[in-house]
Formats: sequence, C-alpha cells, structure tokens
Amino acid sequence: MINLNETHDAMLESWLDSANDPNTDFPIQNLPFGVFKRKNTDEAFRVGVAIGDSIIDLTAISWLKDLEENTQKALHSCNSPSLNALMKCGPEVWSSLRLMLSRALRKGSEQEALLRPTLVPQQSVKLKIPVDIGDYTDFYSSIHHATNVGLLFRPENPLLANYSWVPVAYHGRASSIYLSGTDIKRPQGQLKTSFASYPIYAPTEKLDYEVELGVYIGKENRPGETVNIDQTPQHIFGLCVLNDWSARDIQAWEYQPLGPFLSKSFATSISPWVITLEALAPFQMPHERPQSHPSPLSHLNSSQNQALGAIDIQLECYLSSKTMQSDKLNPQRLSKTSFKHSFWTIYQMLTHHASNGCQLRSGDLFGTGTQSGPTPLEVGSLLEMTEGGKRTVELNSGEERNFLEDYDKITLTGFCERIGFRRIGLGSVTGKIVPAKPT
Amino acid sequence: MINLNETHDAMLESWLDSANDPNTDFPIQNLPFGVFKRKNTDEAFRVGVAIGDSIIDLTAISWLKDLEENTQKALHSCNSPSLNALMKCGPEVWSSLRLMLSRALRKGSEQEALLRPTLVPQQSVKLKIPVDIGDYTDFYSSIHHATNVGLLFRPENPLLANYSWVPVAYHGRASSIYLSGTDIKRPQGQLKTSFASYPIYAPTEKLDYEVELGVYIGKENRPGETVNIDQTPQHIFGLCVLNDWSARDIQAWEYQPLGPFLSKSFATSISPWVITLEALAPFQMPHERPQSHPSPLSHLNSSQNQALGAIDIQLECYLSSKTMQSDKLNPQRLSKTSFKHSFWTIYQMLTHHASNGCQLRSGDLFGTGTQSGPTPLEVGSLLEMTEGGKRTVELNSGEERNFLEDYDKITLTGFCERIGFRRIGLGSVTGKIVPAKPT
Repeated sequence: MINLNETHDAMLESWLDSANDPNTDFPIQNLPFGVFKRKNTDEAFRVGVAIGDSIIDLTAISWLKDLEENTQKALHSCNSPSLNALMKCGPEVWSSLRLMLSRALRKGSEQEALLRPTLVPQQSVKLKIPVDIGDYTDFYSSIHHATNVGLLFRPENPLLANYSWVPVAYHGRASSIYLSGTDIKRPQGQLKTSFASYPIYAPTEKLDYEVELGVYIGKENRPGETVNIDQTPQHIFGLCVLNDWSARDIQAWEYQPLGPFLSKSFATSISPWVITLEALAPFQMPHERPQSHPSPLSHLNSSQNQALGAIDIQLECYLSSKTMQSDKLNPQRLSKTSFKHSFWTIYQMLTHHASNGCQLRSGDLFGTGTQSGPTPLEVGSLLEMTEGGKRTVELNSGEERNFLEDYDKITLTGFCERIGFRRIGLGSVTGKIVPAKPT
Repeated sequence: MINLNETHDAMLESWLDSANDPNTDFPIQNLPFGVFKRKNTDEAFRVGVAIGDSIIDLTAISWLKDLEENTQKALHSCNSPSLNALMKCGPEVWSSLRLMLSRALRKGSEQEALLRPTLVPQQSVKLKIPVDIGDYTDFYSSIHHATNVGLLFRPENPLLANYSWVPVAYHGRASSIYLSGTDIKRPQGQLKTSFASYPIYAPTEKLDYEVELGVYIGKENRPGETVNIDQTPQHIFGLCVLNDWSARDIQAWEYQPLGPFLSKSFATSISPWVITLEALAPFQMPHERPQSHPSPLSHLNSSQNQALGAIDIQLECYLSSKTMQSDKLNPQRLSKTSFKHSFWTIYQMLTHHASNGCQLRSGDLFGTGTQSGPTPLEVGSLLEMTEGGKRTVELNSGEERNFLEDYDKITLTGFCERIGFRRIGLGSVTGKIVPAKPT
C-alpha cells in the first residue's frame, strides 16, 4: 500500500559506519522515530531518529538549508516530548522528512560534517514511551491463535462464527502501557479453580506473554467519519513490538460476559522505536486469506489490500530464567513466526475500528493480538505452547515452565528480511517479572 | 464515607436568589465543577462552579483575601481548560475550596459585593467536556440489569457465576465521549440476524440508551499500587450522568469472545457538571447486598462500605420523538430508578479496578453500567423494557418504540432528595439521534 522509492534502495550506505553493519536494526533504510534525552541531564525529552548505534537529534538540525516546506513542518513538530504532533501531520510530511534524512545521512552527502556533531550515541540516552497514547485497542487477528485458544475452551467449536467476518477486538488500558525494560510486577487478582466453590484474591499463577505488533495512528479521522480501506495507510504512522502480558487464571474467571479486563490491564510493554509504514514497504506482500473462509464484506476488501495488505515481519520470543541469567546461558527462543500469517491486515483492522464512526486520534495505539503461525513452533503465548498449562516447556537450564516464574525475562524481537533489500529491525521489547510482594 | 459538615446544612441560603429556588439543581449545598467560556468570545475555557442560574468564575477570584493555603492551591489549578489539575490535588484541597465558596456565597457574606461581578449567567456560556479523560471503563454493577439482559440471552442461566464476586467491567473508548447536547449519528456496523447466513454492513436497527452514572478519578494511585477500599473516597473527585449509547445488533454479533467493542465506541454522552463526592455526602446510605449472595472477598468489603457505600441518586430517563418535539408534547418518562440498588458500590468498583496494580489517573472516568432497579418501571435501557425488541413501548404521541428512531431525543437526569437536606441535582445529559447518512 506504500510505493517503493529511493529511500528503500539496498545499495544505500551511510557515512556512519555502524549503520552499515549487516546486523544493525537501524540501517539508513529504516530511520525509526523515538523520544530521548541524554542520561543524567536535565535536558528535555525530544524527538530523534535511530541510525546505526546513534540517534540524530531532530531538534538540532532545523538550521539545515534548502529544506522543503513539508520537511520544515516535520522538524518543527519534533521539538516535543512526544511524536503526536508529527504523527498528526500526515504522510506527505512524514515522507518528506524521511527523504531528507536518507539523503543527508548517505555516504558522500555534503551534510556529513554538519550532521555528525548532532549525533548522540544510543548508549548514552534515556528513552521514554514515544507517544502520548490516548486510546489503546487490542485485536485478535491471528486465526491460528484464535483456534488454538478456542480449542482449549470450546473443543467442539473452537472458532466462533463471527471470526471470518469481524476483525474481533476489545478496548484496552492505556495507563498501564510501559516502555521496554520496565519490570513487570506479578499482578494479584481473583482466581477460582474449577474445583473451588469460591475465588481467592492472590497473585496470578498463570502469568503469560503475548507476541504482538503495535500500530500507531497517524492522521486522524473526524468524529463520526469512517475510513476507506485504501485510505488507511495515511492513518498509520508506524509499528512497534508489543507484549500483551496476560494473567490466564484471572482472565478465565472474569471474562464473561464483557471480555478481558484486569487480566490484561496490569501491564502492556512496547518497544521504544516506531518503525514507519514507509520503512516497511519492501516487506508488504499479498494477503493470503484461507480459501475455506468467505470473502470479507466489501468495506473490508480491496484489490490493494489483497495485493499488498500483509507484511512479512518476523517475530521471535525469548525467555531467560533467573538461573539462565546468573549462569550466563543464552536466552532460549520459545517461538518464531511472521505477521504475514495474520487473518486480518492492519488496514482491515483500522477500517473496521472506524466503521462505526469512532474517532482514531493521532497517537492512539492498537495491538494486532497474539501472532501465532500455522505450526506448533510458531505460537505466540505459553497458553498455546503448554495447552493451558498441561504440558511443560523445557529450558536449556534444565528448568521447566508451564507459565512464567518470578524473574523470568521475556524478550520479543521483530525484524524484516527479503532478498534484494536491507534487513530492517523493529528492535525489541523486554520485561522481567518481579514478585507480587517484596520477598 | 464522607462526613457531613457545615456546607451540607439545609438552612444555608445564598445571596444569589436563583440558588435558593427549591427546583434548582445547583443550590449552595451543591457547588459542582465545570469548564466554560462565554459564547461568541475568543476567551479561553476555564474552571467554574455552578450556583443557581449562574457560574462563579474561579479564575476571577484568586485575589480574595485571607485564603487558606489549600484554597489558594485549588484556585491556582483552575486556570486551565480542564479539571485535571484540580482533581489531582486530593480531598483536602477540594474540601478547602468548597468550604471557602460555601461561606463566600452565603447570605450575609461580606464578599457578596466582590463576588457578584464575577458571576456569569449559565445561559451565556459554552460548556465543554470538563476533563481530559485518559482511560474510560464501564462497569456492570446493577444485578437487576445483568439479570434482565442475561434472561434474554441465557434464560436457563441468566446470572453468571462470577457476578457475585467480581465487579465485572470492560475497557471503553475515551475518544468517543461527547458532551450533553451533541447529536448522536446512528452508527453503521456488521449486523447478522439469526436467519441470515452472513452479516451485512448497515446502520444499526437496534439503537439503545443506557442510564448510568460516571465517576471521575481524583487522586492517582501509583502504577502497580492497589487501593484499600476505605481509601477510595480520596481517589474519587465526583460524579456525572452518563448515557452509554449501544447498538444491540452490532453487539450481539461482535461481542464473543472479547466483549463489546464497536457497539459502544461510537458514542458515550456525559452531563457537563461534576458533582463532588462531598456534595453527595448526605445521600450516602447503607449498602444492601441481597442475602442470597456470599459476602464479597475481604479486599472488597469493609464496615464503612457496608454502612455508607450506597448513594441514593435518583435517575430518570425521558424520550421525546420528532413528532413530540414538533407538537410540543412533554418528553415521556420511560423509567425512574436509584443508584442505591447497585449491587456493587463505587468504592468496590474502584478497589477492584486497581486490585491488579492498574493505575487510575486523575481524569480517568468509569461508568457504573446501566442502572436498573428491581421492578419493570425501573429498567435503564430499551433492551430490557422491550425484552430485546419483542414488545413495544407506547409514547404519548401514539407512536411506538422497540428501539430508538432517528430524531428521538433522550434525556437522562440525576438528582438526590432526602428529608432534612437540600435537593442536589446532577444535571442532565441529552442526545438526539441523527440519521446514519444525510437524507
């Protein structure tokens, strides 16, 4: 849904060596946005773009000469502790800034001497949640996840009738969204086993992660206005990696009839850099909808969405237990999948979300829902991997897991690879479980 | 949970005659907060307090002499287009401001001559949503409503097992909260009848209202911190009347397994004035929990909550059709109930909401869920009144309703009455349905 242009050329290299490292998440083809300040200083948080191991401070380059009007507008919006103002500007402005940065950071650029002093090493900064998130929504777009979970609760009828038609979602909680690296306190809540006659209020015993992507709203629709599916890319600023921490025992007891509530609202973790839709353009691909399902309703369907609606973002989940951390063992990969398997595209999700006239404001966030692929090695939660806790996962330390233990550290990473293009990283989101009460 | 003091004395009268009218919502015992500016001016929105037919402009009285430090702090926070800064200050500050205003507005106050010129007639102002609402949550606290709705969907098992234990709730949408008086566009969505083999995307045919109260968070808990039930009054700034507009056909098709989404997020309407918990103190009463239900878990239970957890706020719902409006017929009262029947108190709801460590931020809002009383004349939605649309309601114009028609105007009002105390009004919230597409 986004055209390729010179900024995507795999041959482009930066005058900054670290951006040319084949393993970097942030080559010159990426240029993701974040909000930072230098550690241990009183300076204000402001907008920057990651490049290799550094950050270009967008508040320090507005004096560059011969800038396009849209680029000036973009830079003007970056003197802010959040990306919201930039997000509101719309795709022409975002694109214009990207093109300018791509040219200025290229090997041979005349601006190298001017820009080099404005770079800040990533190691020297403190990042924050880059967006003032208004509303947060969580979808349920992986049919494999929905089927796996459905099998646990309704073996005779795993996938509900509405799934083929409705990009199912629920409203989530914005106040408990945390930046990657924030410790996650094991939540307390009401737990009731099927054998007990009444619930208890206690720390969850079934703490889980969910592998998701987060999608940030850019341009707003007006209140009461819907969004045509082919216009949706204008309304999406970019993506991050998201961990929708979940307490399965709290969820099982509370969720009927109005859906998940406290089982989710204790914490959602996000990665710090926002990868623009334009950076992800080379990884768009045809959206394959299983043929056994009916075509979507016409407002959720378009040839453009069919041709390029999927995005091949690879997602990996790693666990490192306390023992593994102290024994310096490598984190263990629990699963790997791709967002290309999603039953609903981000464009369908957005059009659905606004189909009742609900306003999506700049900075609003939606999660894609847990991404699980078609095979057992591709599932995005322990709930699925252990069949609701019945099976155990063996760790390389010899330990076993049904659900998360205190001090387990979960890391989700996202990246895109395609022959003929540079690898683009989304970065990662980590979180370590800490006990419900100090021990 | 709030002590009575001199500001509640029924004998108090104001030097402003309209505040002494027995029918006013805003006697000197009320003093609710709102955000206003004078119509057709460029002036900034700012905080005011309603008194009789007027508003006292809190940005115009900071020069008053001999103000307590807490009152100064309160007034300092009012030079703002939202109540959030004041809400964050906590109950000592709110109380101090209330006491000062109560004394200054009393008959015989030496400040009459100074204050009279700062009054602005309510008729001359434009009000706005008084709070920057971060997160919005909707509870399900009326057992009569839950039972009535349950009977329609699960006649054999109307009330789910968790109802007696869990103050059930779901996260709602903050971006579609509108001020009273805003027209409500009939939303479109996916509708599927039980006879059809596939859904269609069309304007809802089952548009409904829900009679609720809204509760605004005052003081914040820290992320990860829970709130003891006896501390909850510090965290509640005040209440409003709330209409949770609902599209029943969209809801029936979308809500499994994650709860209501687009059937609610097209619009929620709120009344403009925030009635403080302190103003409502005379109407606190013992919370009567039906004896057939087990006691709440200990974190949701306290002698204080049992003794004074309920609030006798009367709630009425009126409908006026297009014909009734043009024939100048009185709006028809559809129902009348009281919040005292709620199965869960606002204190239990708040403690539950934070029981997993979820931060409730100043300005967050929760709805109580539809309030229905024990009899058929007390139900808070058409869904209940018409048994899912099977029966019709006859209007005084001779028309009939199963659900709302275009141009129907719904008005919800809230007020408190008790012998020995002045009547306190919460004001009202209105909304008129306009067609999905211009006709």
